[in-house]
Amino acid sequence: MLKKLVNDPFDAVDEMLEGFVGAHGDVVAASAPRVIARREKATNKVGLVIGGGSGHEPSFLGYVGMGVADAAAIGNVFAAPGADVCLEAIKAASTGRGVLLAYGNYAGDVLNFDLAAELAELEGITCRTVRGTDDVASAPSDDRGHRRGIAGMFFLFKIAGAAAERGDDLDTVVALAERANDLTASIGVALAPCEVPGAGRPTFELGPDDIEIGMGIHGEAGLQRGRIEPADAVVDRMLDAIFADQAARGLPPGAVALLVNGLGATAYLDLYIVYRAARRRLESAGWTVSRSFVGEFVTSLEMAGTSISILRLDDELRELLDAPARTARLAG
Amino acid sequence: MLKKLVNDPFDAVDEMLEGFVGAHGDVVAASAPRVIARREKATNKVGLVIGGGSGHEPSFLGYVGMGVADAAAIGNVFAAPGADVCLEAIKAASTGRGVLLAYGNYAGDVLNFDLAAELAELEGITCRTVRGTDDVASAPSDDRGHRRGIAGMFFLFKIAGAAAERGDDLDTVVALAERANDLTASIGVALAPCEVPGAGRPTFELGPDDIEIGMGIHGEAGLQRGRIEPADAVVDRMLDAIFADQAARGLPPGAVALLVNGLGATAYLDLYIVYRAARRRLESAGWTVSRSFVGEFVTSLEMAGTSISILRLDDELRELLDAPARTARLAG
Repeated sequence: MLKKLVNDPFDAVDEMLEGFVGAHGDVVAASAPRVIARREKATNKVGLVIGGGSGHEPSFLGYVGMGVADAAAIGNVFAAPGADVCLEAIKAASTGRGVLLAYGNYAGDVLNFDLAAELAELEGITCRTVRGTDDVASAPSDDRGHRRGIAGMFFLFKIAGAAAERGDDLDTVVALAERANDLTASIGVALAPCEVPGAGRPTFELGPDDIEIGMGIHGEAGLQRGRIEPADAVVDRMLDAIFADQAARGLPPGAVALLVNGLGATAYLDLYIVYRAARRRLESAGWTVSRSFVGEFVTSLEMAGTSISILRLDDELRELLDAPARTARLAG
Repeated sequence: MLKKLVNDPFDAVDEMLEGFVGAHGDVVAASAPRVIARREKATNKVGLVIGGGSGHEPSFLGYVGMGVADAAAIGNVFAAPGADVCLEAIKAASTGRGVLLAYGNYAGDVLNFDLAAELAELEGITCRTVRGTDDVASAPSDDRGHRRGIAGMFFLFKIAGAAAERGDDLDTVVALAERANDLTASIGVALAPCEVPGAGRPTFELGPDDIEIGMGIHGEAGLQRGRIEPADAVVDRMLDAIFADQAARGLPPGAVALLVNGLGATAYLDLYIVYRAARRRLESAGWTVSRSFVGEFVTSLEMAGTSISILRLDDELRELLDAPARTARLAG
């Protein structure tokens, strides 16, 4: 059983939320149980609700604040938030101009956010949904609506949030969110599993010298298992999958934002070595890296590994990515 | 041997630096081998040089930029930077008003930074030194000049950097840096070791159910080894040591900034639960938490565990802590 700094596992999420609101009370407040909202509710803008299971911190609560989300609906570890929680998050985000729900494409999240959206509509709140589907390992290019959402969801949240913040109407925010999601491609690699508090066993088994490319952020099966290799070789395999996806979609090399995300237990030393390898490979294949993000954005508790995401940029997406934000995990 | 995403371990630090400068070229540049400096050199201010071994990222290079350091001298993993590297960092930071060297109190760092300061003085650059000595586990209260520097060094860097940025003269910056260091107290807990790339073995051994309170950021021996307990109990033991130090120094409860630092492999879920426990314990003992920091500030590669730091605040320190900064890891 993995050593953790928790108390009763049953209380872990609520204790985390108490800590989070205590630490970041200048930015957020708990507007309802399991709902983290902006401390000061915005006025006259499209609302952005994000959310999903706990264990992916700083997603989702770390992205609530000016310039990104209005509220986050928080589930148990690796479990979707209840529909009641999603509904309260929608109400917290609603200022009368409609609410966009943006979250990863997982069955439980879809079910509960959809139900909450129906209930909100009954109360007169117009809801739209954009699901994160950036993980190229989780379904073929021609079926990418069925892909899972992983670290590239950060781009979706940031761009939808910036569009809502500048006053775009709901149709425009939805269109930009869909564009950001459609132009994002990600793939992960796992080196070692995590463990859900109280579960008593890891989320998956991986031999002492093995890695799994394409594994999801809850330990979902990936594309290939193999021996650990030098970072450059691992990154090549990961980018092979992203390039194959782009080629299958007829998308030529272009300018991108590059995100190297730590899954939880991987050192910055490794993350910057991965970034270096990814950037070199992209540039040698004719791509341009015009924005860079390295760190923990969508984790999987203390899983060891990383994911690489690219967002194809145009002038508008770049401007929205650069727009100011003030959340617990983003500032500037 | 721990799985890592590196290439030849011999190249790991330089590859990391290439990645870091590639990702954050809007803020930093490599002004010399193993020296990370502000992209645009500041003018007419006291220079602040920080540094130390690699493997503690985002320290030290993540704190180079407006509002914090002018340059960082980077060593091999867990090894002091060479005196030549320190000297180049001093030159990069010098604008003619003197340079403060701030780093953790470790023998190798002391030796090389001191030698570099002597060489810089020969070239007409006035240097002063403030060493981070915040780890209460590493020496008694009445011998605290011999303590090691751990995560509380973040407060030292931030406050010295803000004082230099606003134009304070060298004596004032030194006095504020000394005050910040003197008013900071930290203690760590290790749950699992890390491994220096290429070493082939972990930095220390710890039984499957054991933790070590007071362990240093390179695996230096701590105060007590024991079984893993609930987070609240572990935090109580850690704060007992901090409170004992404050009492021995005759310092009553007061207002503090509270930093809960992840050592590398510990999930945000755990860090916020630790923050919650620390804050509750501080408040029940009559302390006030007026600023909060939770995340990875001074890591130890992928070591599992955390450290808790407090900085006793007065109006001036609070203002300097709040002052704007723009580095790879701090914005706002």
